[in-house]
Amino acid sequence: MKKVVVIGGGTGNFVVLRGLKEYPIDLSAIVSMADDGGSTGVLRDELGVLPPGDIRQCLVALSDSSRLMRGLMNYRFDNGCLEGHNFGNILLSALEKVTGSFDRALEEAHRILSIKGKVIPVTTNKVKLKMVLNNGTILDGESEIDVSQELDQGFKSMYLEPFPKAHVKAIGQIMTADLIVFSPADIYTSLIPNLLVDGICKALRDSEAKKVFIVNLMNKNGQTTNFKVSDYLRQIKRFMGKDIFNYILMNTATPSEELLTMYAEEGTMVENDVLTDPRTITANLISDEIIEQKKSDVVKRSLIRHDSQKIAAELMKIVDQI
Amino acid sequence: MKKVVVIGGGTGNFVVLRGLKEYPIDLSAIVSMADDGGSTGVLRDELGVLPPGDIRQCLVALSDSSRLMRGLMNYRFDNGCLEGHNFGNILLSALEKVTGSFDRALEEAHRILSIKGKVIPVTTNKVKLKMVLNNGTILDGESEIDVSQELDQGFKSMYLEPFPKAHVKAIGQIMTADLIVFSPADIYTSLIPNLLVDGICKALRDSEAKKVFIVNLMNKNGQTTNFKVSDYLRQIKRFMGKDIFNYILMNTATPSEELLTMYAEEGTMVENDVLTDPRTITANLISDEIIEQKKSDVVKRSLIRHDSQKIAAELMKIVDQI
Repeated sequence: MKKVVVIGGGTGNFVVLRGLKEYPIDLSAIVSMADDGGSTGVLRDELGVLPPGDIRQCLVALSDSSRLMRGLMNYRFDNGCLEGHNFGNILLSALEKVTGSFDRALEEAHRILSIKGKVIPVTTNKVKLKMVLNNGTILDGESEIDVSQELDQGFKSMYLEPFPKAHVKAIGQIMTADLIVFSPADIYTSLIPNLLVDGICKALRDSEAKKVFIVNLMNKNGQTTNFKVSDYLRQIKRFMGKDIFNYILMNTATPSEELLTMYAEEGTMVENDVLTDPRTITANLISDEIIEQKKSDVVKRSLIRHDSQKIAAELMKIVDQI
Repeated sequence: MKKVVVIGGGTGNFVVLRGLKEYPIDLSAIVSMADDGGSTGVLRDELGVLPPGDIRQCLVALSDSSRLMRGLMNYRFDNGCLEGHNFGNILLSALEKVTGSFDRALEEAHRILSIKGKVIPVTTNKVKLKMVLNNGTILDGESEIDVSQELDQGFKSMYLEPFPKAHVKAIGQIMTADLIVFSPADIYTSLIPNLLVDGICKALRDSEAKKVFIVNLMNKNGQTTNFKVSDYLRQIKRFMGKDIFNYILMNTATPSEELLTMYAEEGTMVENDVLTDPRTITANLISDEIIEQKKSDVVKRSLIRHDSQKIAAELMKIVDQI
């Protein structure tokens, strides 16, 4: 059975994993652990636990349990002292407290939720994401970086504090994978935080796995303003030290004018300037599903989304070749 | 297989169920739904859910899941906005929110926790317990009654508001039981609230099951000051309309002087004044286990406790006779 490792954070991992889960592959997810916003941030601050939010999304994506259980994991309380917390975040935090270890908590969560595959934190060190802008300002924490409108002015460096060690299982999965998938994600707050963990870049460079980069659909104004595909690749190369990708998977379908107008303030579509690159695979990857925005959602969700099944189908074509 | 129904609330149900769970009987628990204190009270107020605390204790008692899962259900957060909440209470509340029904939530909880037997709320109406004292004062809510020091001055009436209908399954279990066990419990706040639900007293009177009353070990000063067994029986008869018990099970062992001194402020041991009553079964029912009091516990727990196994052994002698 081919071994596929998905790396990223946020909803990008969820979308890729949910699609791949239906195929007969050995699937694992490596998840960024730098989140410090929303429910996750409150639980980190108040309980001293590791960030549960991104892990939770991956667990839900890979769960073979009932629809009800998956709904329960994502259920967000909308009142009182629990307001804003996802039940799944509370579950992971309580498990960490009861077992005394995030690893054991996660093991138990795999069992409770009948997980197909493995969800692995990139590190179990408690870290904070930092970014030093060109003007010397230090942005402190993922949630601060996530809302900054100055990132497109460039930055000097990004780092995790304290400098964390990679989870041994993350390195193991990377080194033995057949295919490594970089999820579409906020590049600075979900993808790169994985590369800042000691040992991850080296493992990614050394691994004989094929590597595929799934390009975001949309740019984020103030962060990746008017980015082209080559800009994303350049940012990753800056941290990786070299261009590691064998495939660049990107969408070529165009959303409706109406949706694009709605998005104008948020950002433009990512322009494909690497069409002549032999590594590029193009396809319609856009979801036709209509996603309603809930008012109680703290984070604004995009409505132009990747389609899990379409992405998985393209990735499986690659898997079948290797 | 003999059918045993345990009725009560609070930790009394837990103790009886945990012991009976090990025997090959058809076991169910009917649980008071009037709790409005602590974590349960906050969840009721803020989320509008039914009280999860007593139900949670019964689920843990009957769970065949791992020790870890049972520990998780009882885990009490000790910091931040979740402080004072048991994880299990949050789980039941989230399930009620996601499913839109306490019954479906409970069904799912039975599955998640591999429950041996059934846990049934006495009602799924949202109620508040009221007590009218002899001096005309109305005590509003279980938690207010629970801390009152005036109950031993007598009271005019107790009622649930609004007047609730019994859960159809509670009536069903009572009518088809072979043995009905009244758990040792705070009589006014855990036991009688069951009898105030429309249909329960009639079912208990009509049921052909044998009925056993397990007498409390200790009185509570200000509530059941210097009560004897006959006082407890009289209080229950007041609501039942007649004395329904076939057996009165009570402890005759004496705790250490040291423990009794510690308890002096809280209350005396219940005096057995019905020794000549042919229904009385006496035994050593005291737990030898040393229970540590946690500072984070909102409710003060007694250290003189019933022993689950000893109670179950006595109850099973009755079951074997019928």
